Amino acid sequence: MPVLVVGSVALDSVETPFGKADNVLGGSGTFFSAAASQLAPVQLVGVIGSDYPIDDLERVFSSRPVDLAGLERADGPSFRWRGRYRHDLNMAETLETHLGVFSNFRPKIPAQFRNAPFVFLGNIDPRLQLDVLGQVAKPRLVACDTMNFWIESRRPDLVKLLGHVDLITLNDAEARQLTDEFNLVKAARWIMAKGPKHVVIKKGEHGAFMFSGSNIFFAPAYPLESVFDPTGAGDSFAGGFMGYLARTGDLSDANLRRAVVYGSALGSFAVEKFSVERLIEIGPADIAGRVAAFHRLVTFEQDLNA
Amino acid sequence: MPVLVVGSVALDSVETPFGKADNVLGGSGTFFSAAASQLAPVQLVGVIGSDYPIDDLERVFSSRPVDLAGLERADGPSFRWRGRYRHDLNMAETLETHLGVFSNFRPKIPAQFRNAPFVFLGNIDPRLQLDVLGQVAKPRLVACDTMNFWIESRRPDLVKLLGHVDLITLNDAEARQLTDEFNLVKAARWIMAKGPKHVVIKKGEHGAFMFSGSNIFFAPAYPLESVFDPTGAGDSFAGGFMGYLARTGDLSDANLRRAVVYGSALGSFAVEKFSVERLIEIGPADIAGRVAAFHRLVTFEQDLNA
Repeated sequence: MPVLVVGSVALDSVETPFGKADNVLGGSGTFFSAAASQLAPVQLVGVIGSDYPIDDLERVFSSRPVDLAGLERADGPSFRWRGRYRHDLNMAETLETHLGVFSNFRPKIPAQFRNAPFVFLGNIDPRLQLDVLGQVAKPRLVACDTMNFWIESRRPDLVKLLGHVDLITLNDAEARQLTDEFNLVKAARWIMAKGPKHVVIKKGEHGAFMFSGSNIFFAPAYPLESVFDPTGAGDSFAGGFMGYLARTGDLSDANLRRAVVYGSALGSFAVEKFSVERLIEIGPADIAGRVAAFHRLVTFEQDLNA
Repeated sequence: MPVLVVGSVALDSVETPFGKADNVLGGSGTFFSAAASQLAPVQLVGVIGSDYPIDDLERVFSSRPVDLAGLERADGPSFRWRGRYRHDLNMAETLETHLGVFSNFRPKIPAQFRNAPFVFLGNIDPRLQLDVLGQVAKPRLVACDTMNFWIESRRPDLVKLLGHVDLITLNDAEARQLTDEFNLVKAARWIMAKGPKHVVIKKGEHGAFMFSGSNIFFAPAYPLESVFDPTGAGDSFAGGFMGYLARTGDLSDANLRRAVVYGSALGSFAVEKFSVERLIEIGPADIAGRVAAFHRLVTFEQDLNA
């Protein structure tokens, strides 16, 4: 089953302690698509400027089930982000953000995408996220992401959006900011009371929680020996998570747990190289191997004689 | 089988956002003993001053297998620590430390403790930790803890100690400081190259890693809705870990993993009340329930058709 994603398609310039990359493929929609398309067909809706290296994007996705029919070409500069990481790779320092054509982005969902059973509303204005939901038939699962900027500037719209999504992914700082609760269990409960059945709280290198009612699942981030560039890890997590749900079509708790692990696995690959390089070169055996490594990482047998 | 612990027996004064406690039972040896004695007999070696409320300590341990024969009474004031936590309960702010009689502590292991099969060298001068090892017969497993102060002031002794222990527990900041490696996988490998077969890196509310050669196990901290007072969580973790190993006498990888979970479980109880209050009131059913909750928290089944 396909997964529809609405998100940014950007050009990133990144410096890490291990190297730098200039004007490489980036943006939430791009990372999501690169990760999710390992598992399911992806329908990408976004906007690029007249300066975007569309050939590079098409080449990267040429061997992948990513439908670019919803990728709008607008006159003007593309969304560009420049950032830096020091040794604490959990903390991005934004040096420059130029929204370009993204600042006037009004997502238009192509007719052939409107019945997508799985929908991911990437981190854009909650008014636009709500507008997208008005353009699609009732999906089996709608998830959204958000960020501090929208929590500050569009709180009422964001809270309204929560009434229309099944799941939200956000990081721990955002969850605390949105709910004014420091404790993440309480923060998740606050969010679920506004609508979502599931809340995924991402803690970067410290892993991710999924809250579903009183049920809690936790997956660590994979302890890699070299993290090269953390950019896109969260979007790749979302792509792996939604891609796995779309591939299996199974919304049971057991399968949602597996989806979190697939998300963590794709996130762990994303950070091994710049941009989507690593996500594009891996295949099913790499993903299965990483999921098995996650299983070994956390598995213990209870001592039932204890 | 008994576990021998050498550590501090102190009086703590703690302020948290939820309340305060003055001159309550604290210290690494005390928390360790309260946790470990849920699972195995404990032999405590430490020192208290003439002002210590020994009756309180004896009452707390009266129903527990904690042998206080190694608790020396010295003339002078007891070790006192005063600290505060703000909303980020992962960060203790030390307001006052008075070492008192602890500054002249020279552990003397009673004859009847010298064959202890499990030995935990709490956070004291590495020269004293080495001296303790000279006083005991070859144990089945020796573990040690340390802290930033010893890493700075006693590095050569600490590195020497690493050649004589099977396992070390330390937190992420200490691991980075000791090894000059930011990446915890590399830090653990650095430490293992100095001697220990196992390295447990505690990340507070973000859980704990156990590294054993190329094998890695991770257990999250339990996502409690209310953390009341984090003081002693790490020592209670060590107590649960060593207590479980002492109870089972099994050093297989599967059992070491369970020991990490028992450590995490005891650590999670420790933070629910001030001092050792919660550790003392719980029983085997509470611990088994928490271990089962840990299992539900992290368990997922691999999709072998994937």
